[in-house]
Amino acid sequence: MPDYNELALTLHKENKGKISVESKVALENKDDLSTAYTPGVAEPCRVINKNREAVYDYTAKGNMVAVVSDGTAVLGLGDIGAYAAIPVMEGKAVLFKSFANVDAFPICLNTKDTEEIIKTIKLMEPMFGGINLEDIAAPRCFEIEERLKKELDIPVFHDDQHGTAIVVLAGLINALKLANKKIEDIEVVINGPGSAGIAIAKILLRVGVKDIVLCNKEGAIYDGAKGLNWAQEEIAKVTNKKKQKGSLGEIMKNKDVFIGVSAPNIVTKEMVASMKEKAIVFAMANPVPEIMPEEAKEAGAFIVGTGRSDYPNQINNVLAFPGVFRGALDVRARQITEDMKISAAYAIANALKEDTLSVDNIIPNPLDKEVAKAVAQAVMKTARENGVARI
Amino acid sequence: MPDYNELALTLHKENKGKISVESKVALENKDDLSTAYTPGVAEPCRVINKNREAVYDYTAKGNMVAVVSDGTAVLGLGDIGAYAAIPVMEGKAVLFKSFANVDAFPICLNTKDTEEIIKTIKLMEPMFGGINLEDIAAPRCFEIEERLKKELDIPVFHDDQHGTAIVVLAGLINALKLANKKIEDIEVVINGPGSAGIAIAKILLRVGVKDIVLCNKEGAIYDGAKGLNWAQEEIAKVTNKKKQKGSLGEIMKNKDVFIGVSAPNIVTKEMVASMKEKAIVFAMANPVPEIMPEEAKEAGAFIVGTGRSDYPNQINNVLAFPGVFRGALDVRARQITEDMKISAAYAIANALKEDTLSVDNIIPNPLDKEVAKAVAQAVMKTARENGVARI
Repeated sequence: MPDYNELALTLHKENKGKISVESKVALENKDDLSTAYTPGVAEPCRVINKNREAVYDYTAKGNMVAVVSDGTAVLGLGDIGAYAAIPVMEGKAVLFKSFANVDAFPICLNTKDTEEIIKTIKLMEPMFGGINLEDIAAPRCFEIEERLKKELDIPVFHDDQHGTAIVVLAGLINALKLANKKIEDIEVVINGPGSAGIAIAKILLRVGVKDIVLCNKEGAIYDGAKGLNWAQEEIAKVTNKKKQKGSLGEIMKNKDVFIGVSAPNIVTKEMVASMKEKAIVFAMANPVPEIMPEEAKEAGAFIVGTGRSDYPNQINNVLAFPGVFRGALDVRARQITEDMKISAAYAIANALKEDTLSVDNIIPNPLDKEVAKAVAQAVMKTARENGVARI
Repeated sequence: MPDYNELALTLHKENKGKISVESKVALENKDDLSTAYTPGVAEPCRVINKNREAVYDYTAKGNMVAVVSDGTAVLGLGDIGAYAAIPVMEGKAVLFKSFANVDAFPICLNTKDTEEIIKTIKLMEPMFGGINLEDIAAPRCFEIEERLKKELDIPVFHDDQHGTAIVVLAGLINALKLANKKIEDIEVVINGPGSAGIAIAKILLRVGVKDIVLCNKEGAIYDGAKGLNWAQEEIAKVTNKKKQKGSLGEIMKNKDVFIGVSAPNIVTKEMVASMKEKAIVFAMANPVPEIMPEEAKEAGAFIVGTGRSDYPNQINNVLAFPGVFRGALDVRARQITEDMKISAAYAIANALKEDTLSVDNIIPNPLDKEVAKAVAQAVMKTARENGVARI
């Protein structure tokens, strides 16, 4: 494998970061200047001043997404702050552009205060058609997203939650086809009750999964367990209906699906072997998964997915967020509903050609730029059905 | 003259605004993705986390300027709000790019509260190498700029003040050469004690002009006059040393220079005729100046400048701000000092080839993109001399 650390340092230094702001109009002569700037520019200003919705016609707002982070939960690096988070946020902007022609701009906020983050995003909203929250620590991220969804009239989407949940659901839909199991029959364990784990649990509940147990480092969480944050308490009330207690190893016994969004090497072959037949293992800790795919397979897993590009079945958010925003922006959606997320998951699952579906190919390649188009179409359709589309 | 209003509506609508965010790196294969995004991107994050100054090496910060407005004093349109201000701020971003290859991004803030504006800019500072304040009403603009200059370690520049002041000084330097007058000998009247008028007064004081009288609608302002805001009270203390009172017409008598940043058609031929010999008239109200150039000339003005592109001697900020920021960014300046502004003015004045200097050609054409390079060089040199350059 190439030394991506060295390559990344060189790439970032040579280019001085990864994004630029470019002009879409010419500025070569007096007429150009008088049209793009004064005196002509006053006219679109007047039109928007009379009718605020015209901002979508005459400015870049309608295609512009803010990638907002406070730098508190960046990749596996943790709380590295707003400055050190910039390369990731620029990377996200580059993915938005490359995969869905969305203009995205990093807003890295030098604060960890929930109210300050909410306030700042609300104040700078005019320029943006959507807000992608990124790498904000749980449980703060939940409150920020919920509040902004209520208080803003543009889509707000925390990718660590929903991007991950959408792609996991997409993978699971196809995996279950191969395992010949129904979504309402499966029993699922999710390890890591952070932003991604909780969002995955919520989307699975919504599509009909009846039994989900989330685990933290102590084991299963349940209604009334000690040491949970408010978001974990909430999800504990609607999951683990049998009130199972015990370690991850104990909980994994006889489960159909293991979903790890936690830490490297914490799942053993024995634990996988104790799962039901045709077990599905999504071990997504990055870069080192909860269990390496070859070990999981040896232990009898039917299908294994990871976050890695060097193994089959890469569960990668880039399959979701570009198309989700492309679709939401194209109908000037006021929000991204739960139904829109589920539509996106089915669109990703269905973007895989059926004759290529196999245990080592349950989800499209993250580099397949056609997926975003299919996702966008599905998201647009559902936005209209849900009545959240402006056009 | 073409109908710039119609042209502007078409241009803005067809392009959906004027700016886009583009990727500077390729994203075609797995290695690209692993270098621009995970896992490679973690490495520049780690480096910046250890050494914050490395943010200039590995991100787009060092070339990125925020164009920040609250939309309260937009062109001649006044308080049209953050949404309607976007076309102007995008226009500014386009000028930055086109004239000086500066990446600039509009931040249009949905508040008129001074503290909220200051706070928001401070919180989102990590992504930006400089802050260009734009079209914020006086006197709030002064406090916002002063506070941010103290509280941030990157250049903060309110273009309506300093861009205008720099270009007026540049024009005046060359006009005085032709009039054969010295800067320390001239008497100046400035009509319109808003952000531009006050900044012009300050820069002229700094370069040695001894007698300046600012006027508002009631006439001359002076220390102790009623109805002034705090910024006007402050400037009144250091201008109008003779404590002149009276109308603009009375004040203009025997003055060498009239500078208008006020309202259309408020200066008569008689008023210009009452000025000293070789009078210099910069009538910069836009689009209709304080007096039309042909009238001022008929009344005996020696040199007339306006903000208009269809008359000689266009006093246009675009001669200043792109080069000022180019220079400031290239040395990673911590601030833009008064000396840097004055250097910029001399660089603009000197960018005019001496053998072309004439009463109808005192300042370079705003479309001359070489000017920004000369300004940048001068600004860099002075930044280093002033000890505000990081490199």
